[in-house]
Amino acid sequence: MAGSAKAVGPTLAVVGATGAVGTVMLQILSHRADIWGEIRLIASPRSAGRKLAVRGRQVEVVALSEEAFDGVDIALFDVPDEVAAHWAPIAVSKGAVVVDNSGTFRMHPEVPLVVPEVNPHAVRVRPRGIIANPNCTTLSMIVALGALHAEFGLRGLVASSYQAVSGAGRAGVETLRQQIALVAGTSLGTNPGDVRRAVGDNTGPFPEPVALNVVPWAGSLREDGWSSEEMKVRDESRKILGLPRLPVAVTCVRVPVVTAHSLTLHARFESEVTVAKAREILATAPGVVLYDDPGAGEFPTPADVVGTDPTWVGRVRRALDDPTALELFVCGDNLRKGAALNTAQIAELVAAESA
Amino acid sequence: MAGSAKAVGPTLAVVGATGAVGTVMLQILSHRADIWGEIRLIASPRSAGRKLAVRGRQVEVVALSEEAFDGVDIALFDVPDEVAAHWAPIAVSKGAVVVDNSGTFRMHPEVPLVVPEVNPHAVRVRPRGIIANPNCTTLSMIVALGALHAEFGLRGLVASSYQAVSGAGRAGVETLRQQIALVAGTSLGTNPGDVRRAVGDNTGPFPEPVALNVVPWAGSLREDGWSSEEMKVRDESRKILGLPRLPVAVTCVRVPVVTAHSLTLHARFESEVTVAKAREILATAPGVVLYDDPGAGEFPTPADVVGTDPTWVGRVRRALDDPTALELFVCGDNLRKGAALNTAQIAELVAAESA
Repeated sequence: MAGSAKAVGPTLAVVGATGAVGTVMLQILSHRADIWGEIRLIASPRSAGRKLAVRGRQVEVVALSEEAFDGVDIALFDVPDEVAAHWAPIAVSKGAVVVDNSGTFRMHPEVPLVVPEVNPHAVRVRPRGIIANPNCTTLSMIVALGALHAEFGLRGLVASSYQAVSGAGRAGVETLRQQIALVAGTSLGTNPGDVRRAVGDNTGPFPEPVALNVVPWAGSLREDGWSSEEMKVRDESRKILGLPRLPVAVTCVRVPVVTAHSLTLHARFESEVTVAKAREILATAPGVVLYDDPGAGEFPTPADVVGTDPTWVGRVRRALDDPTALELFVCGDNLRKGAALNTAQIAELVAAESA
Repeated sequence: MAGSAKAVGPTLAVVGATGAVGTVMLQILSHRADIWGEIRLIASPRSAGRKLAVRGRQVEVVALSEEAFDGVDIALFDVPDEVAAHWAPIAVSKGAVVVDNSGTFRMHPEVPLVVPEVNPHAVRVRPRGIIANPNCTTLSMIVALGALHAEFGLRGLVASSYQAVSGAGRAGVETLRQQIALVAGTSLGTNPGDVRRAVGDNTGPFPEPVALNVVPWAGSLREDGWSSEEMKVRDESRKILGLPRLPVAVTCVRVPVVTAHSLTLHARFESEVTVAKAREILATAPGVVLYDDPGAGEFPTPADVVGTDPTWVGRVRRALDDPTALELFVCGDNLRKGAALNTAQIAELVAAESA
């Protein structure tokens, strides 16, 4: 624990404090109930010594090392998969509970995958000392979907994503920024080849230009042509909802939006559903905002949703040919609920159980 | 017929010659087989007198009037619904066959709705003298879907669109151009409200900012929260495929792309399908390009597809939980196959039957 008189709560470490998600994490920790004693900021050695604001104070970043976890009660990891694979068990061995936002542990049978609004009790059983935070695309829909599942019983899902570039970290945002500058002086894709010529090889972490374009690919290649991102949404949704055989078909597409992932959902339930009941569920579900009056211009878009905590839901319709299915458009900030916020919420659950 | 010695073919009129689709139509007519005698350009009175290039010659635009249809054999209409409703029957009464790209006549039981690769024979039965051209979103998927249906028998479709702004005409393109200039100097939507503050009321034909955003709305409000665009895709697909009770669930979303509509498709068939057979069908279907090797970075995007004629198909996978369903990502130029090209192809079918 830090020497300050305020340090009465558990010690929290933020590993990856200088990344896109880490930056949002510090904002979130500054605004949520201040239950923490010390908040320690950990990053790669090249960021060590930088000072970042959290809870109105400047905190110096320390380099990732075994000693950095001394006295840490809960460690939030937002680092690449291989860094998490190596360092999370070290943090656990030093006595910390790890909440990890990488893909490394999510599907491990001894690691719970937690969304506090959906399966909060799962945090309690963590034989590895690790709790996993879902992928940002899963998180952008799962709170709304979980609320509907609790009432109607989900039987199948077809989803298509509209994923923001910040899902690929700071490099994703910087790439879109550069590409917009490059295309802004052209005829904007009116003519064949405009975008490709303007952008050249400047595609950053994406396989194709993303400015004035949509790219039906996220992650790496899995078997039978599926992307890793699509498999994550399928596998993680099944695990969080406790439906290991749920039929899930997902296509993940990157769009030129900076922050906030959107998805269209076609969700099939056990028996007949009504839009009235679905709206009632969504209007009262914790962490969900129903914003659905297209006649009055009301449906969520990333421009409205960025910077907010909830999952926004609009375009609620019953399938015209299947009284058991609903159509939805959901939208959530992929850096907040999609990453940092959910991680912080999990940490708060863990802190509460030991308080 | 024009006085030129070349004028041996039928006389073609292009009504709405100065619009976004009309402009592409003149390019297409200049590059396809030159079967036409006179090509007459018709537009609103404020565009009359302008000269536009077609087949390497400058042709003066004439104002829309009853006399403008004198001697016209086939008239291609790309004008707003109410203009088509008024003027198409007048053109017919003057002896022309009308190929109309508005929404006015598409679902009329006495008007065939034609995609030459899918239902060419439907052009022959046209008791009203009018043939309708499908909506651009329907057209961006229907050639690929029709080829798969012919082999496998379609039984259900869930589709989500990624629609370009030129689907809303020149005003859509100009709006995105202005919005990109407005947001380019900001922090690009990194902070809440960035996009909305930068764009202000400058949303043109769209209900929300479209730069750095996606907007889950196209068209006008229909019953039970559906948009007119979504109902068009459903109704038109059923009519073109001859499947009046096909279950179709569509969500239409506008994206910041200038030209080329994309869709994700979850298509369910009569019995088990294989990816190998689907790829064989798509690789050989007229008007379709299979571009599907994600390991080698090959999948269609609007940046590649703009300016081309075919429907591009990638990301072909079999649903992991349903051996009768395929997942696809399709992409097509909404101004070419999605509008002008299909209209020109229909006109060529009509010209061929009377030749």
